[in-house]
Amino acid sequence: MSYAVGVDIGGTKIHFAVVDEEGTITEQRIVPTGAAQGPEHVMQNVMDGISRLMAGGGVSIDGIGIGSAGQIDCRSGSVSFAVDTLPGWTGMPIKQIVERGFGLPTYVDNDVNVIAIAEKCFGSAKLFDHYVCLALGTGVGGAIVEAGKLLRGSSGGAGELGHLSVDFNGPRCSCGNYGCMELYASGPSIARLAREAGFKGGLQLSSSGEVTAKEVIAGWTEGDALAGKVMDTVIRALAAAIAGLIHAFNPQAVIIGGGVAEAGEPFFAALTEQTEARTSSSMRNDCRIMPASVGANAGVIGAAAQVWPFNTGAFGKRVAL
Amino acid sequence: MSYAVGVDIGGTKIHFAVVDEEGTITEQRIVPTGAAQGPEHVMQNVMDGISRLMAGGGVSIDGIGIGSAGQIDCRSGSVSFAVDTLPGWTGMPIKQIVERGFGLPTYVDNDVNVIAIAEKCFGSAKLFDHYVCLALGTGVGGAIVEAGKLLRGSSGGAGELGHLSVDFNGPRCSCGNYGCMELYASGPSIARLAREAGFKGGLQLSSSGEVTAKEVIAGWTEGDALAGKVMDTVIRALAAAIAGLIHAFNPQAVIIGGGVAEAGEPFFAALTEQTEARTSSSMRNDCRIMPASVGANAGVIGAAAQVWPFNTGAFGKRVAL
Repeated sequence: MSYAVGVDIGGTKIHFAVVDEEGTITEQRIVPTGAAQGPEHVMQNVMDGISRLMAGGGVSIDGIGIGSAGQIDCRSGSVSFAVDTLPGWTGMPIKQIVERGFGLPTYVDNDVNVIAIAEKCFGSAKLFDHYVCLALGTGVGGAIVEAGKLLRGSSGGAGELGHLSVDFNGPRCSCGNYGCMELYASGPSIARLAREAGFKGGLQLSSSGEVTAKEVIAGWTEGDALAGKVMDTVIRALAAAIAGLIHAFNPQAVIIGGGVAEAGEPFFAALTEQTEARTSSSMRNDCRIMPASVGANAGVIGAAAQVWPFNTGAFGKRVAL
Repeated sequence: MSYAVGVDIGGTKIHFAVVDEEGTITEQRIVPTGAAQGPEHVMQNVMDGISRLMAGGGVSIDGIGIGSAGQIDCRSGSVSFAVDTLPGWTGMPIKQIVERGFGLPTYVDNDVNVIAIAEKCFGSAKLFDHYVCLALGTGVGGAIVEAGKLLRGSSGGAGELGHLSVDFNGPRCSCGNYGCMELYASGPSIARLAREAGFKGGLQLSSSGEVTAKEVIAGWTEGDALAGKVMDTVIRALAAAIAGLIHAFNPQAVIIGGGVAEAGEPFFAALTEQTEARTSSSMRNDCRIMPASVGANAGVIGAAAQVWPFNTGAFGKRVAL
C-alpha cells in the first residue's frame, strides 16, 4: 500500500492527513491557517504540520500533495494569484519549499482542482473523463476535466466558474462582473437573498439571529413560501449557469459539492429538472447532475491523490474506466 | 508546397477550395447546400464539389479537410447532432464516404472549430496556445483551445458558447435556456432588439424595410441615440459572457469573428473596455480581445488546414510558438 501526505490550505484552516492509495485517511490534523500573520507564517504552519505527520508515522510516505486556495501554477507549484482570504500568498513557491524541506516529490494544485481529483479517484467521477465540478460553499469554485485532464488555462486560473454571469444587469460582484453565479448559489448569497426577501426563518427553525443558507434550505423543504421563492431563484440561476456549462463543455457529468449541496435530494431533483429544461437534447442526454461523494475530506484526500498517477488515464486497480 | 481541399458546409451554401499550406486559396467554388432536398443530396453536392476541384487541378492534393455545421465526432468524422439548418444530417458518416470516394486522408470537424484552426495557423491566434473563438453571425458559435488542443467534450459538442445564459430571467432560447448570449449578440438578435426599441434606421441609412444588425451598428457609430442604447445592451451582455469565459478558461486571447465583428474598431474598443471592467485583474492581464483576422474564407481555409499537423505543437515554419 502506498501512502501520501495531503495538505488542504484554506483561508481559515489547514487540513493535514496521511492518506492511503485507496483514499482512506489513516491520520489527520487541523490547524488554524493564521493568514493574518502573513504568508511566511502560513508556510511555516504548512511545514510544521507536515513534519508532525511525518514524525508520527509508522508508514513510509511516497510523496506530498497540496491543495491551496487561489490561482496555482501547478508546474512550478507556486501561487500565481492569491485570494483575499490568504493575503500576500501570491508568488509563494510552495512546491520548492516543501520539496527542499522533506526531499519527497511534491505536487500543488488549486483547492477545487484537488476535489475534482478526489472525485475521479474515489468518488462520483470514477467513470468519467469529461466532467465539471462545482463547489458551492462560502464562494462558488469550479474545476473542469476534459479527456481526463484538468483544464488549467494560460496561468493556472481556469475553472473560476463562480464568475460566470447569469444576469448581466444583476448586482456587482467583487470580480467586477455583474450577476455572477456566485451571487446566487453560494451559502452567504442564499442567506442574503433570503434577508432581502424578508425571510426570518421558519417556525420550526431555531432562531440564530442571522439567517443562514442552511435555515433557508430547511424552510424550503418544509414548505415555507418565502424560502421557496428564494430557492426558486437560486435553483433557476444555478440551472442557467449549469446549462451553459453543459453547452460549453459537453461533459458526462456535473458534480456538485460544498455546503449548499448538502441540501440533498430535493435540491438535486429540482436542479436537474431546471437544468434539463434549459439544455438542448443532444447535450442533455450525455450528461448527469450528481452530488459529490467523497465528502468533507475531499480536499485533503484529493491533494494527497496527486501523488499517484492522475491524468495518465491509467488509474490502475482503483478505477474502472 | 503541400495542397489540400477544404470544404465548409453551411446551411445555405457549401464552399470548396484548394488551399496551400501557407493558407492561400488557389481555386474555389461555392454551391447551394440544397439542405431542403435531404442529407443524401447534400452529401452528393459535397462529393461533386470535391470531384470538380480535384479534376481541375494541376497540383497534387495531400488530403481533404471538412468543416460542417452541427455537432461533429471528429474521430469518426460523422455528424453526432445536426442543427436545424441541415435537417437529417445527424449520423452522416462524412469522413468514411469522402475517404472511400477519393482515397485521401480526410478530416472532419465543426465549422467553428475549423475557424479556430485557421486563426491558429494563419491568423490572430498564431502566438497562442490557450484561446477562445467566438463567431457572431446568424447565431453565436464558439471554439475553445486549451494547451494547443481543441476542447471537444464527451461527444464532440463542446464550444456551444452562444448558449451561455447572461440573463436567467431573460427571453427563452431555442435550446431551452433563458437569456442566452446568442439572443443578444447574433446579427438577427441585434436587429430584433433594435426593432423592439423602435429603431427604424438612421437618416443617412438606406431603408430596406427591415432593420438589420448592419444598420444598427452604422446608426450607433453615427451617434443615433436609439441604436446606441441597443448596442449598449449588446456590448454589456457580450462582455458579461466574455468575462465569464475568461474566468472559466483563463485564455491568452478571445478572438471574435463573424458578421457582427465587422463592426470594427469602435465595437472592439467598447467591448474591451466593458470586458476589462468585468474581469478580475489576475485573469484580465493575461488576456487580449482581438478580431479574427483570416476573414470570410476562414471556414474553408481552416477546414483544409486540418490536413497539416494541427494539435501537435509542431507548426513548423508557419507559426512561431
